[in-house]
Amino acid sequence: MLLPQDIIRTKRDGGELDAEAIHTWIRGVVDGSIADYQSAALLMAIYLRGMTAAETAHLTEAMMHSGEVISLPEITAPRVDKHSTGGVGDKVSLILAPLAAAAGLCVPMISGRGLGHTGGTLDKLEAIPGFRVALDTSAYRRALQRTGVALAGQTERFVPADRILYALRDITATVECIPLICASIMSKKLAEGIDALVLDVKFGRGAFMKTLDDARRLAEGMVAIGRAMRRPTWALLTAMDRPLGRAVGHSLEVIEAIESLKGRGPDDLMEVTLALTARMLVLGGLAPDPESAAVRLREVLASGAALEKFRAIIAEQGGDPGVIDDYDRLPRARRIVEIPSTESGYVVDIDAMRIARAGICLGAARRRVEDAIDHAVGVAAIRQVGEAVDVGEPLCCLHVNDEAGLEEAVALARSAFSLGERPPDQPPMILGEIS
Amino acid sequence: MLLPQDIIRTKRDGGELDAEAIHTWIRGVVDGSIADYQSAALLMAIYLRGMTAAETAHLTEAMMHSGEVISLPEITAPRVDKHSTGGVGDKVSLILAPLAAAAGLCVPMISGRGLGHTGGTLDKLEAIPGFRVALDTSAYRRALQRTGVALAGQTERFVPADRILYALRDITATVECIPLICASIMSKKLAEGIDALVLDVKFGRGAFMKTLDDARRLAEGMVAIGRAMRRPTWALLTAMDRPLGRAVGHSLEVIEAIESLKGRGPDDLMEVTLALTARMLVLGGLAPDPESAAVRLREVLASGAALEKFRAIIAEQGGDPGVIDDYDRLPRARRIVEIPSTESGYVVDIDAMRIARAGICLGAARRRVEDAIDHAVGVAAIRQVGEAVDVGEPLCCLHVNDEAGLEEAVALARSAFSLGERPPDQPPMILGEIS
Repeated sequence: MLLPQDIIRTKRDGGELDAEAIHTWIRGVVDGSIADYQSAALLMAIYLRGMTAAETAHLTEAMMHSGEVISLPEITAPRVDKHSTGGVGDKVSLILAPLAAAAGLCVPMISGRGLGHTGGTLDKLEAIPGFRVALDTSAYRRALQRTGVALAGQTERFVPADRILYALRDITATVECIPLICASIMSKKLAEGIDALVLDVKFGRGAFMKTLDDARRLAEGMVAIGRAMRRPTWALLTAMDRPLGRAVGHSLEVIEAIESLKGRGPDDLMEVTLALTARMLVLGGLAPDPESAAVRLREVLASGAALEKFRAIIAEQGGDPGVIDDYDRLPRARRIVEIPSTESGYVVDIDAMRIARAGICLGAARRRVEDAIDHAVGVAAIRQVGEAVDVGEPLCCLHVNDEAGLEEAVALARSAFSLGERPPDQPPMILGEIS
Repeated sequence: MLLPQDIIRTKRDGGELDAEAIHTWIRGVVDGSIADYQSAALLMAIYLRGMTAAETAHLTEAMMHSGEVISLPEITAPRVDKHSTGGVGDKVSLILAPLAAAAGLCVPMISGRGLGHTGGTLDKLEAIPGFRVALDTSAYRRALQRTGVALAGQTERFVPADRILYALRDITATVECIPLICASIMSKKLAEGIDALVLDVKFGRGAFMKTLDDARRLAEGMVAIGRAMRRPTWALLTAMDRPLGRAVGHSLEVIEAIESLKGRGPDDLMEVTLALTARMLVLGGLAPDPESAAVRLREVLASGAALEKFRAIIAEQGGDPGVIDDYDRLPRARRIVEIPSTESGYVVDIDAMRIARAGICLGAARRRVEDAIDHAVGVAAIRQVGEAVDVGEPLCCLHVNDEAGLEEAVALARSAFSLGERPPDQPPMILGEIS
C-alpha cells in the first residue's frame, strides 16, 4: 500500500510518479482517503518539479475515470470537439458547433462558465431565453442524436477529481502549472465521448498564456496526452492580443455569432473559426486536408445549413429559436453609450484586456463565483485594426444597464484603442499548429 | 490584507517572505484562518525553494510568540540550555544539567520524547519512579529557583504553531528541511527563557543528519537565528556513528548517567558532555574559555557536587532520589542475554543504528506515538571501539522482558560490531564548532 507521503516525497525529490502512484492519489482525492493538505503539498511539488509526458497522461486518465465517462456507440458520425483556452470576445464555439454538425460531424461539447476576464460558452448560450445547458446524460445523448450537437455543462458525476483539485489549486497558488492545466482540460474533454479533438490555444494580452512559448508548451502537452490516449488532437496557436470580432458580452456575442452564420462575420473571427472547424473535419475523416475542408465549410455556410443547424440546436435545448430572426428577443441593454474618438487615424491596436475590463465594469462577468451576470451588457461595434476613424466617430459602443461602473468602463474602453497615421500590417491570427 | 495564496505564490516563485507575511501565516496557523492545505502548499514551496537567514529568523520569532514565552527575571544566575539533535545512547542532558547547575548556571530545559530510533530525555527521566516532567509554569519556575534546573515537557500553551506545523510536515513529506528544522528547534528553545544556548548537532549513521555537511548547515542556521534573536548560540558538531557510551535504553542510560556523575563515565560520553557544558559556562560568563571551564567542571564532578545536584533535581520533580544509591529501584529487565563474540580481535566499529534497532525490538522505543515504552529493556555493557575481545566474551548484553523481539534483537546486536586484528585509531568525537 502506497502512502500519500511516499507519493509526495517521490515528486518532491524530482522523481517520476508511476501509474499506480497517480491512480492511488486521484482515487484518494475522490474517496477522501487522501487529505486536502496532502494533495496541496503534492500539487506544489508538481508545480515546482514538473511532470513528464507519461505522468501527465496517467494523471489525465486517472482524473477522467474519477467519474462518469460517456461513450456514444449509437452515434455513427465522427465525434469531434473543439476546446479553447479562453479569450476576449471568443464566440467561436457558437459558430463552429452548428457549422461542423451541418458538415457531418457529431460535436459533443461540454463547456465551462466564464473564468476571470474571459467569457464562457455556457453563459453566452444562457443569454438565449429558455436555453438549458444542464443536460443529464440521456438529454445529452438525445441532443447529439437529433442535431449532432450537445452544448452542455458538467454534471456532478463528471470528472469529480478535477472539481476538487481545481478548487484546491485556486487557493494554494498552484493554478498556473502546464501539466496540471493539460490534465484538467484533457480529462474533461476525453470523458465527453470524443474520437478526436481540436484545441484553440490562445496567447497574448487577453489570454491566460501571455507568450507564444507558454502557449506552445501547453499545446504540446495536450497533443501528447491525446496521442497517449489514442484521441488524435490538433492544436492551433491563435493570437489573443485584441478582442476576437466586434463584440464582447453575452447577448452581443450571440448576435455576432448569428450574423457570422448568416455570412456577415468579421474577418478575424471567421479566419479562426474556419481554421478550427476545418481541422475538425480532417480529424473526423470528412476532408483530406484543412484547405479542402475550408472550401466545403464555406459552401455549408453559404447554403444556410449552418444557420438552420443552430436554430435546431437552440430548439432542442429548450431555447427560443426566434432570436435568430429577431435579436430583440435577447436581453438588450437600456442604453448605448458611444465612445467617440478624440483623434483621426487608423486603428493600430486594441487592448483586449481593457475591453474585457470595461465589460466587467458594466456587469458582463462575475467578480465572484456567486455573482449573477448581466447578459445584456458589454462592448459592441468595436472598430477593427486597420479601420480609419475620424474625430468624433465611435471607437466602440458600450451597452449599459447599471450606471455605477460606467465612468470606469468609458475610460477603459477609450484607452483600449491606439491610433496611428497609417494603416498597420494586419497581424496574423494563427501563429502555429501542433498535431 | 495579505491573502494566504499571495504568501504561497511569493515563496513558490522563489521570492523572500517579509516579517509581515510570515507573522500573518503563523497567526493564521494558530487561529485557524489559514487552512492546513494552504500551509501544506507553503511548506512544500519552502522545502523546495529554501528560506533566507532573515526569513528563518522571522519564522522562529513568529512561532516562538505563537504561545507562552517564559521570562525568568527572578533568576539571577545566567540561564543557559543545551539542545541535541538526537542520537543513540545520548544521555548527555542527564549529566550536563546537574553539572552545569552545580557550576553556577541556571538550566531551563524543555525537552522532547523519543523520536524514531533516538531516545528522548523525558522518557529517560520517567524511568525514575515518581519523576514528573509535566511541570506547569509555576512548578517550572520553582524548580529553577530551588535547584537551578528544570527538566520539563512542553505544555499545550508552549509554541502551539510548532505542534500544528510539525504534525502537518510529518504527513506531507516536508520534515527534512533545514530552515524548518532550525525554526522548530529554536522557537522552542528561545521560548524557555534562556540567555544563551549550546547545540549538539549530531551527524552520522545514528543521527538524523547523515553527513557533516548537512550538520554544518543545520548548525549554521540555528546559530544565525540565535544571533538574530540576540541569544548567543554555540554549536558543536559531534559524531554519531557509534552509540554514545556503553548503554542504550531508559533505566540503563539513567544508571550510566549516575555512574558518570560518580566519575566513572565512559570516555566518549564524558568528552562530549564536558565539551558542551564547558561552552555553556563560557556563554554564561562563568569561564573565559572552554579549556578553563573544563578544568572547573572536572573539579565540580570530583567534588560530588554534580551528583548531589542530580539528587536534588530528582527530589524536586517528585522522583525517588534513592535510585542514585540503589539502581534496583529503577525498572529492571527480567533477563540479561549476553551476545558472545564469535571471533577474537579488537572492536573497530559499532553501528549505532543496529544497536538502536535492537533496542526497538526489545520494546525500548515507540513504533507509534500511542505505544508504551518499556523503560527496563535495552542494550548495555557495549564494548567500546579499541577494546579487545576474545571468542565467547560478550560484545554487549541485551536486557529483555518480552521474548517476542529477542531473536531479531540478537541478530542486530551481533551484526552491529565489526572486529579487526589491530586496535583502530580512535575517531574524534567533535568535528567542528560554530559560534
